[in-house]
Amino acid sequence: MTDTYNRPSVAKPVNLGSSAAGLAETWSARVAGAVNDVLVKVARIEGDFIWHNHPDTDEGFLLLSGDLVLDIREDDGTEHPVTLTPSDFYVVPRGVFHRPRSANGATITLFEAAGTVNTGNEGGSLTAPVDRPLA
Amino acid sequence: MTDTYNRPSVAKPVNLGSSAAGLAETWSARVAGAVNDVLVKVARIEGDFIWHNHPDTDEGFLLLSGDLVLDIREDDGTEHPVTLTPSDFYVVPRGVFHRPRSANGATITLFEAAGTVNTGNEGGSLTAPVDRPLA
Repeated sequence: MTDTYNRPSVAKPVNLGSSAAGLAETWSARVAGAVNDVLVKVARIEGDFIWHNHPDTDEGFLLLSGDLVLDIREDDGTEHPVTLTPSDFYVVPRGVFHRPRSANGATITLFEAAGTVNTGNEGGSLTAPVDRPLA
Repeated sequence: MTDTYNRPSVAKPVNLGSSAAGLAETWSARVAGAVNDVLVKVARIEGDFIWHNHPDTDEGFLLLSGDLVLDIREDDGTEHPVTLTPSDFYVVPRGVFHRPRSANGATITLFEAAGTVNTGNEGGSLTAPVDRPLA
């Protein structure tokens, strides 16, 4: 991934906060960089996403601004909310069903494997293009 | 790494900013979580680090607060500074020699492979324990 996203001679820092805040669409992450096989993405979100999982990758969430709750479904079927405040980082392990939601809107950074579909195997209208770079 | 650092039934969000700010030592990162094979670490830094590289892993830097310059050495031997402002993210590709420095101090998040030595193969007094978790 290094060759695709990071070029030492020309790459510039990406401001995650302003990049995320400037996105026109919600729930449609854009790639800001890559660390080995893990992509670093920014997104702007608002409202409820759908329950889904990613069988083959952990998914890290960093809340940049606003409010974010990750509903988590345990292996035994019980569910509980994980509430983040700005600068909080949380990892949803691979395979674990989760539902992100933001009552009043948020900007976030995501960390996950390249090729990850935002809705997992659930499909639906919230499914976004995979691994789109920032403009 | 999922099993080691992320346990969905008990894991809580980690506040990267306050975790980094609370570290007693500078230049000694602590692991806050893992996304697949990439560890997410927090550190507090001040002054000049040493020139080094990591042949086997990219290294992502996110500046949380304060000031950070990454001096970068190109393949042709030329050097140039990359200046970050808070919320800026930058990836030093594997193999690229670099020198982090912070004139007035900073808190940062690092993203790199497990097992990464902070000084690469350079050794010296700034070499810190590898992959220590947050207390």
